[in-house]
Amino acid sequence: MVYSPAIAVPRDGRQSDMAHALQRGVGRLFRARGHAVVTELGLGNGRRADIVALGPQGEITIVEIKSSIEDFRADRKWLDYGPYCDALFFASHAGVPAEIFPAEAGLILADGYGAEILREPPRTPLTAARRKAMMIAFGKVAAHRLHGLVDPEAGFAEL
Amino acid sequence: MVYSPAIAVPRDGRQSDMAHALQRGVGRLFRARGHAVVTELGLGNGRRADIVALGPQGEITIVEIKSSIEDFRADRKWLDYGPYCDALFFASHAGVPAEIFPAEAGLILADGYGAEILREPPRTPLTAARRKAMMIAFGKVAAHRLHGLVDPEAGFAEL
Repeated sequence: MVYSPAIAVPRDGRQSDMAHALQRGVGRLFRARGHAVVTELGLGNGRRADIVALGPQGEITIVEIKSSIEDFRADRKWLDYGPYCDALFFASHAGVPAEIFPAEAGLILADGYGAEILREPPRTPLTAARRKAMMIAFGKVAAHRLHGLVDPEAGFAEL
Repeated sequence: MVYSPAIAVPRDGRQSDMAHALQRGVGRLFRARGHAVVTELGLGNGRRADIVALGPQGEITIVEIKSSIEDFRADRKWLDYGPYCDALFFASHAGVPAEIFPAEAGLILADGYGAEILREPPRTPLTAARRKAMMIAFGKVAAHRLHGLVDPEAGFAEL
């Protein structure tokens, strides 16, 4: 799999190549569904969502990438993402049994080239205030990262 | 002035080097004030704003770049930008007389390295629905452009 070099988007040093590939496939899925996507978005509670999608009506979807059984089992912080989205998905690959993922979240099967939704999640709409805060956070991080690429000499801080 | 090559951000073919430099300086100003910035954002009425800034509370500011007296005089479409922002500025450089710009808009003095506000504009707050639409448009265009850089093989359409 080939990735462009020198893309100034934060990549978690702990993130595996598999997780990175799944992130790419999931990004393509949401883009094809008319959503805009950012990765590694910090939330108000200090957590960092793997993928946040912004829909055409302002819908906020969070997708957590799980590249192994251990990766899922070791991590209960997904419960902290619910209050920041209308819908929460896990995304994993064919080598991880679908049964391990909780029914409270949707499920996406992904690889490095695309993804498909296996199970839609329940929708719990955000309050208007929280939605606004998420839209601001989304726009800010996407624009700031892009701005850093367009004007690298300005020395903006990393986001 | 050095710009990074191969930045997949639309640059209007008619845009002068001066206009491009001013855009950079204005971008730095708003970034320093805590706003996120995108360039060339399409509006609901078919116009395209030179710069749109998103503030920490969701404030929407539009800045129109005017690099010459003729550039300003030839263009009355700035009246169409007001309904899409809380505040509208013109930005120009020291070679253009400040008096030509209307008092209904703010005024920014810029060069390729930075900018300063000479006159604050009146604020006419957007409706909640229009603000939401602008925040979605802002987030979408910034995220889509960034996504195109991160995953160029996906062949996303230009924005």
